[in-house]
Amino acid sequence: MFSLKSKLKLQKRFRKMSEGIGENMEVLSMNLWKISLDEYNSYDNRKYETLFTLANGYRGIRGALEFSSKGNKGNYIAGIFDKSQSQVTEIVNLQDPLGFNIYIEDEKVDVDECGLDRFKRELNMYKGILYTSFIATTKKGKSIEVKCERFVSRNKINRWAAKYEITPLNFNGKVFLENYIDGSVTNSAWDVMNKTKHFKVKNNYDSNPGIALAVETNDNNIKALELTTLMGENEKGNIFKNRRYSEFGEIVSEVYETFMIEGKSSTIVKYGISISDRDLKNDLFTAGTKELKDFMKDGYDEEIKKHIIIWEKIWNEIDINIDGDEKAQIGIRFNLFQLSSSAYEGDTIISIAAKGLHGEGYKGHVFWDTEVFMLPFFIYTRPNVAKALLMYRYNTLQGARKNAETTGYKGARFAWEAADEGLEVTPKWGVDYDGNAVRIWTGDEEYHINSDIAFGIVEYYRATNDKEFIVNYGVEILLDTAKFWQSRVEYNKGKDRYEISSVIGPDEFHEHVDNNVFTNYLAKWNIEKALFFKDWLKAEDNVKYKVLCSKLGLNEEDFNVWETIYKKMYIPKSEDGMIIEQFEGYFDLADIEISKYDENGMPIWPDFKGNKLGETQLLKQADVAQLMIMLPEEFSEDVKKLNYEYYEQRTMHKSSLSPSMYSILGLAVGDRQNAYKYFMKAIYTDLEDNQGNTDFGLHAAAAGGSWQSAIFGFVGLRVNKEGILNINPWLPKQWEGLSFNINWKNSRVCISMSKDKIEVNSTGDLSLNIYDKKYLISDKKHLIVAR
Amino acid sequence: MFSLKSKLKLQKRFRKMSEGIGENMEVLSMNLWKISLDEYNSYDNRKYETLFTLANGYRGIRGALEFSSKGNKGNYIAGIFDKSQSQVTEIVNLQDPLGFNIYIEDEKVDVDECGLDRFKRELNMYKGILYTSFIATTKKGKSIEVKCERFVSRNKINRWAAKYEITPLNFNGKVFLENYIDGSVTNSAWDVMNKTKHFKVKNNYDSNPGIALAVETNDNNIKALELTTLMGENEKGNIFKNRRYSEFGEIVSEVYETFMIEGKSSTIVKYGISISDRDLKNDLFTAGTKELKDFMKDGYDEEIKKHIIIWEKIWNEIDINIDGDEKAQIGIRFNLFQLSSSAYEGDTIISIAAKGLHGEGYKGHVFWDTEVFMLPFFIYTRPNVAKALLMYRYNTLQGARKNAETTGYKGARFAWEAADEGLEVTPKWGVDYDGNAVRIWTGDEEYHINSDIAFGIVEYYRATNDKEFIVNYGVEILLDTAKFWQSRVEYNKGKDRYEISSVIGPDEFHEHVDNNVFTNYLAKWNIEKALFFKDWLKAEDNVKYKVLCSKLGLNEEDFNVWETIYKKMYIPKSEDGMIIEQFEGYFDLADIEISKYDENGMPIWPDFKGNKLGETQLLKQADVAQLMIMLPEEFSEDVKKLNYEYYEQRTMHKSSLSPSMYSILGLAVGDRQNAYKYFMKAIYTDLEDNQGNTDFGLHAAAAGGSWQSAIFGFVGLRVNKEGILNINPWLPKQWEGLSFNINWKNSRVCISMSKDKIEVNSTGDLSLNIYDKKYLISDKKHLIVAR
Repeated sequence: MFSLKSKLKLQKRFRKMSEGIGENMEVLSMNLWKISLDEYNSYDNRKYETLFTLANGYRGIRGALEFSSKGNKGNYIAGIFDKSQSQVTEIVNLQDPLGFNIYIEDEKVDVDECGLDRFKRELNMYKGILYTSFIATTKKGKSIEVKCERFVSRNKINRWAAKYEITPLNFNGKVFLENYIDGSVTNSAWDVMNKTKHFKVKNNYDSNPGIALAVETNDNNIKALELTTLMGENEKGNIFKNRRYSEFGEIVSEVYETFMIEGKSSTIVKYGISISDRDLKNDLFTAGTKELKDFMKDGYDEEIKKHIIIWEKIWNEIDINIDGDEKAQIGIRFNLFQLSSSAYEGDTIISIAAKGLHGEGYKGHVFWDTEVFMLPFFIYTRPNVAKALLMYRYNTLQGARKNAETTGYKGARFAWEAADEGLEVTPKWGVDYDGNAVRIWTGDEEYHINSDIAFGIVEYYRATNDKEFIVNYGVEILLDTAKFWQSRVEYNKGKDRYEISSVIGPDEFHEHVDNNVFTNYLAKWNIEKALFFKDWLKAEDNVKYKVLCSKLGLNEEDFNVWETIYKKMYIPKSEDGMIIEQFEGYFDLADIEISKYDENGMPIWPDFKGNKLGETQLLKQADVAQLMIMLPEEFSEDVKKLNYEYYEQRTMHKSSLSPSMYSILGLAVGDRQNAYKYFMKAIYTDLEDNQGNTDFGLHAAAAGGSWQSAIFGFVGLRVNKEGILNINPWLPKQWEGLSFNINWKNSRVCISMSKDKIEVNSTGDLSLNIYDKKYLISDKKHLIVAR
Repeated sequence: MFSLKSKLKLQKRFRKMSEGIGENMEVLSMNLWKISLDEYNSYDNRKYETLFTLANGYRGIRGALEFSSKGNKGNYIAGIFDKSQSQVTEIVNLQDPLGFNIYIEDEKVDVDECGLDRFKRELNMYKGILYTSFIATTKKGKSIEVKCERFVSRNKINRWAAKYEITPLNFNGKVFLENYIDGSVTNSAWDVMNKTKHFKVKNNYDSNPGIALAVETNDNNIKALELTTLMGENEKGNIFKNRRYSEFGEIVSEVYETFMIEGKSSTIVKYGISISDRDLKNDLFTAGTKELKDFMKDGYDEEIKKHIIIWEKIWNEIDINIDGDEKAQIGIRFNLFQLSSSAYEGDTIISIAAKGLHGEGYKGHVFWDTEVFMLPFFIYTRPNVAKALLMYRYNTLQGARKNAETTGYKGARFAWEAADEGLEVTPKWGVDYDGNAVRIWTGDEEYHINSDIAFGIVEYYRATNDKEFIVNYGVEILLDTAKFWQSRVEYNKGKDRYEISSVIGPDEFHEHVDNNVFTNYLAKWNIEKALFFKDWLKAEDNVKYKVLCSKLGLNEEDFNVWETIYKKMYIPKSEDGMIIEQFEGYFDLADIEISKYDENGMPIWPDFKGNKLGETQLLKQADVAQLMIMLPEEFSEDVKKLNYEYYEQRTMHKSSLSPSMYSILGLAVGDRQNAYKYFMKAIYTDLEDNQGNTDFGLHAAAAGGSWQSAIFGFVGLRVNKEGILNINPWLPKQWEGLSFNINWKNSRVCISMSKDKIEVNSTGDLSLNIYDKKYLISDKKHLIVAR
C-alpha cells in the first residue's frame, strides 16, 4: 500500500461491503479503483474537496464534507459566469445544496468538534460514488455512526443525491436532521481582498417536503435553482415525526425530528435537482419540481444503478489497464476519471476549464490546455465529447472575431483565457508579494492559442474522419485563424521573411520575445492546414466553400499570400540547423543549466548569478519540445533527440503541463530513464499535490497529459504523414502488461500488451504499423505480434 | 486567587498596564474589580459571552470573541421584539456589528485554528471595558499579538467601540483587516427546531470609509441600523494602503490592506453606531452617519473617558464594599455591574428582561423578577432608573387591560411574561424530553404578578417620596390592579370569605392550587394599598382623583366591595395559626423533607416514593418565605422563624430566585449559618454557572436578589410600619467591614461598618433605627454607633 502525503491512501486491498454504505458495494475486486483517505485533518479539507469532486460535465460539486464548515465548498454549473466586482468574469460558485446536519438533541454532529473514530472517505472511481463514514462522539459523549454516499448522476445531468445511514451507538434519543441550501456562498472565499458574491438570492421555496432556493447572477441575470428533499426510513418505515421549514436570509432549511434507538440504523436519502435557465428557458421551479418528483418516483437505487452503468460504459472507453504497477494504475485512473467527469457531449457552448469543474482556480477559464492537453484523450476515447469541446470554439467564434477586431487584426483571434462568450478575459493585472500591481501579458501575447485550436481540429478530424464536423465547422475555424495570422505576421523586407514579434510562447518565463518557434511554426502549420482544407472543401462541397469564402471575406489573393507566408515563415535554429532556437536571441541568454534535483527528481532552482529569470535560458515548461510532441511527423529523430537533450536540461517544470510532455518526447528519442519519473509526476500532480495548489481545482491539463504520456509516450501511438496509425511500445520494467481502447475512424481498437506480445483487436479494418512493420487487421479478427 | 470552574479566574492581584491594551489601564489597585479568564476553550464561549456582555440599558452586546465563529453572538436593542415563526414574540438578535478579521496574507487569525498563547479576557467592571489579548500562531507559523478593548458607551447610548493593538511577532508582511457587519444572524441559533430569523436585510451602505447594514423586523417593520468604521495608525500615521468594499448577501464588509513590520504595533479603532427607529423616527442612515462622524470627531479616547466617568458615578451609587472577603467582594460587584448595565433612565417603555440584555433565554420577556427582585436595588441606588422601570408598566397598561378583558376580568391584568406591548406572551406549550407537548400554565395562573407590580410601586414611593410619579402613574396602577382583583376573587358564601382558586404561586411545582397565600395575601395587600392611595390622592389632588375614577370606572360602591374583600380574604394557616399553609390542602400533601445536601450545601432530591412532585410538599423556591421577605412588617418574628424553618426544609432552590431570599429571611430570624451559603450561591449564580444555563443570559433576578441579600439580609435594612428606616447588621465573621450608599427620600445615606462600629452619613435629615434604637442624623453630620 502506498502511503501518500497527508494520509491519502490508494486503495489496493480488497474491501468488504461493510466499509461502503452497503448495497452499492459489490463483492468485486475493486482494489485498483479507489482513492481513500483514512484520517481527518480540517486543514486539508480544500485539497480533498478537489480530489473528491463529483462532476458530470454539466456541473461539478466539490467533495466537501457536509459535517464540517471548514474548507471551500463549491457548486458550479458549467457555463455560468459572472463578473460583478471581480477583475474578470469567472465561473460562479452557486448556492450550496449539500447542506445536511445531524443534531443529537442540541448537539450538532460537526467533525471539527466531535471526537472521530474510523474516519474514512473513499472515491470509487469505477462507479463514480463518493463514500464517507465515521463515528462521531459529541462533547456530551453521544456516539453516532454515519455512513454516506454521494453521486452526481451521469444518467440525468440535473440529478444528484446522497444517502446517509445513521446509527446511534450508545443512546436512544431525539435526532434532528436538517436539510438546507446555502445561498451565502461567494467565490474566492479564501481570499479576503477578492472574495466576490456573484448572485442574489431571489426566492426560497417550501415544497413540503423539500426546499428550493433560486438565485440570479448579478450581471446577466442567469437563474439557477437548487431543489432538495429528504426521505428517512428504518426497518419500520418512515422515521420523520415532525418537520419545520425556515428561511434564514440566504439559507433555506427544513428540519425533521426523529427518535433513534441505540444500535438501530436509519437511512436518509437526499434527492437533489440543479437546474438553470442556461439549459431551460421555462419556469425553473415548475420544471425543477417535476424533475424532483420524477427522481423520487424513479428512486435512488434505480438512478444510481443507471449512473453506474454509464460509468461502466465510460470506463470501457477510457480505461488504461496497467498490470504490475498499482501506483501507476490507480494514479492514471484518477486522471481519466476526473477528466471524464469534466465534460459531456450534451452541451456545445461549454468547454473544460483549466481546473475542470473542481475549483475556482483560473476562474473557470478555458485555455490551450483543452485542445493541446485534454482533447487528444477525448478524441481517442470519447470522440463525441471531443466534438462538443471543439464546438465550443465554433460557437464562440464571434467572441474570437471581436478579439481580433479590438486588437487591430482580422479573422478570429481566440482568447488566451475564454469564458462564456469567447472574449478575451485574461486579467490584465496581478499582484506581487509586496502588493505591487504586475502587468499580465499572456492575454496580449500568447497568440499560439489560435494554432492550438486549429491543431485540435485537425487532430480530431484525422482520428475520426468526421466530415460533418470539418465541413460545417472545422474548416471555418481553420480559415478564420489563418486569416488572423495573415494580419498578424510581419514581413521583414531586408531578410525576405515573415516574422512574429513580441509574443509569449508556452514558456512564460520569457515575455515580449520575437519569433518564438512554437508560435511561428504552428502559425505556418495553421496556414498550411487552412490551405489544405480549403482545397479539400472546394472539391468536397463547392457551395459550402463559396459561402464560406463570402462569409469570411477570403479569395484567391488571400490564399496566395498564405502560400507565401507559409513558405517564408522564419524559424530560428542553431547554426548547424539541428537545435531549434526557442526564439530569436534565446541562445544569447545566460546559459544556466540545471544540476540539482529534489528527492522526486524534479529540478532545483540553479543560481542565476544576478540575472533576471527572463535573462536566462531556463524554461518554465516544454516549448520547443511541446512543438515536437504535437507535430512529431515534422521533425527527424535526430533533431528531436538533440532538442530534447538541450531543453530538458533547462526546463524547471514550473507548469503541471510540462512533465508529461517531456516523458513523451523522451521516450520518442530513447530516454527511458526520465520517462517514468515524468509520467508518475504527471499522474500524481493532484493526488500528491505536487504543484501545491490542488486546493484550487483539478490540474485538468496534467490529467490529459497523463493519458498522452501513457498512450503517445509508452505505447508510442503516433499518426504518420500518411495518416497511418503507428505504435512503438516500450513499457517500464515493472509493467507486466498494458491495455486500452481507442477509437480510430469509427473503429474501436483494443490494444493490449504483455512482456512478450502485443495483441490488437479492431471492430473495423485497420492498417497499423507496429515497431515500423505494417499490419492489416480485418474486422473482428485479432492480431498477435511478439514483442 | 480563586480558581473557579472552567478556568474563570477572579482577578485579585495587582496587574500591570501591559496586560490591558495600555492607555486606559491605570496603575490603580483594581484587583477587586475584574473578572478574568486565562484559558480558551471554545466549548465555553456561550457562557463567557453572557458573563462578558457589555450593555448600557439601551442595548446589549454579548461578549463574543471576534476571532471565533463559535458560540452565540448576540446584539440586542431593548424593546425590539418580533414573533415571525417563533411561538411567541421575542427580543430580536440583530445584525452583528462586531465583525473584525485579521488576515496574515491568506491566513485568517481564528482562535479556533491558531496556536494560542497568553490568552486572556478581562472584564474591568469599574470602567465597563472588556479586554482581550492573545498571541496567535497560524498554521504557517506566523505569530501575531492582538490586544483589544471594547466598550458600549454609557455616555452616548448609540455608541460603542473597539480598539485593537496588533503586533507581528515574527514576520513582516501584508495584513488585511476586515471590518464587517453580519446580517445572517438568527435567534435561538443553538436550537435547530426553533432557530428563527426575525428581520430582513434591507440595505447595505458603503460610506467609504465605513459600512452600514440596515434591517427591518418581519412583523412590525422596526428598522435597526448598524454603522461601523475603522481607523488604523502606527507611529508614522495611517497604515491603510488600500480598501475593498463588498456586499455578500446579508454581510457587508470593508477590507483594508496594510503592511506590518515585525515588532511594530499598529492600533486600529473601530467606531460603532447602533440606531433604531424605536428611538428615532428620522432617516436612520442620515442620523447614524452624522452620529458616527461626531463620534470620530470626539475620538475614541474622549468617549471612553466620559464612559468611565459615568461608570465611576454609577459605582459611587451602587457599590457594596466588603472588606476581608475577596470572593464575596468580586461576586457582588459582578451582579451590581451587570444589573446596572441592563437598565437606564432614558427609556420608559422598556424594562429589564429575566436574562437582562445578556442573552435570549426567556425570549427577552419581563417577569415579576423585575419588580420583586431587581427593583429594590434600583429604588435604593438609582431611583431614576427604578422610576423608568415602573413607567414601563404604566406605559403598557393598555396591554394589561386587554389581558384582563380577554380572560374575562376587569381592570389591569399584567402579563406573567411581557414584551413590548404588555400583552401576555407566555408560551402556551413547551416540549418535554420525549418531544411531547406540555401545557405551560404560568401565563394563565400566575396572577400574583399584579400585586408584585403594586408592591414595586409602593416600595418605590416609600423610599423616594416621588409624588409626581405616584400621583400621575402609581395610583392608577394600584387602582386598576385592585379592580382586577375585585373581578378575580370568588366569594365563598358558606364560609363567608373571599377565595382565589386555581392559581400558581411563586412555587411552580404546584399548579392549579386554591388559595395560595402568597397570591391571596398580596391581592389583599394590593387592595389595601389601592384604598389607601385612593384616599390619599383624593386629599392631595381631588381633580386628578375624579378623573382617575372616571377613567377607570370606579366609584364608592367599588371601594366598599374592596374593603370587604380586604377584610374577608382567606389566608390558610396551621391550626395554631403559626405556620401559614402555602395553599389550601398543602399540609395534606406527602411530607417529604430534604435530608441530603451536595458539596455546595444545596439540597439533593429526596426520594418521592411514587408521588408526583406536585403531590409532595417540596417547593421549587421561596413562596410563603417570599411573602415574609416582601412584607416583613406584616409578620411577627415568631411566625417568620417558624415558617422559615418549616419551608426551608422543603425548598429545593430550583430557581435562581430562591437562595438570596432564604438568606434574607434566615438572617431576620437568626439563621446565620445558612445565610452566607445562600448569599454566595446567589452572587455566584452566573460566575459559577450554578444553574447550568448562564449560556442563555444573565440571571438578572438573582443579581437583584444578591443586592437584597447583602442589604436587606446582612445589613438588615427594613422600613417599619411607620416608614422609618431600620438596620440590624450582622456580618459573617470574615467580613471586616461593609459599606454602601442608599438613597432615602432624596437624601444620600452612606452606611459603613467595621467589626466594632457603624458609621452613618446623610445628605439630609434622617431618622434611623439601629438595632432597634432610634437615631436622628442631621444633614452633613455623621453618626457613629458601636456594634
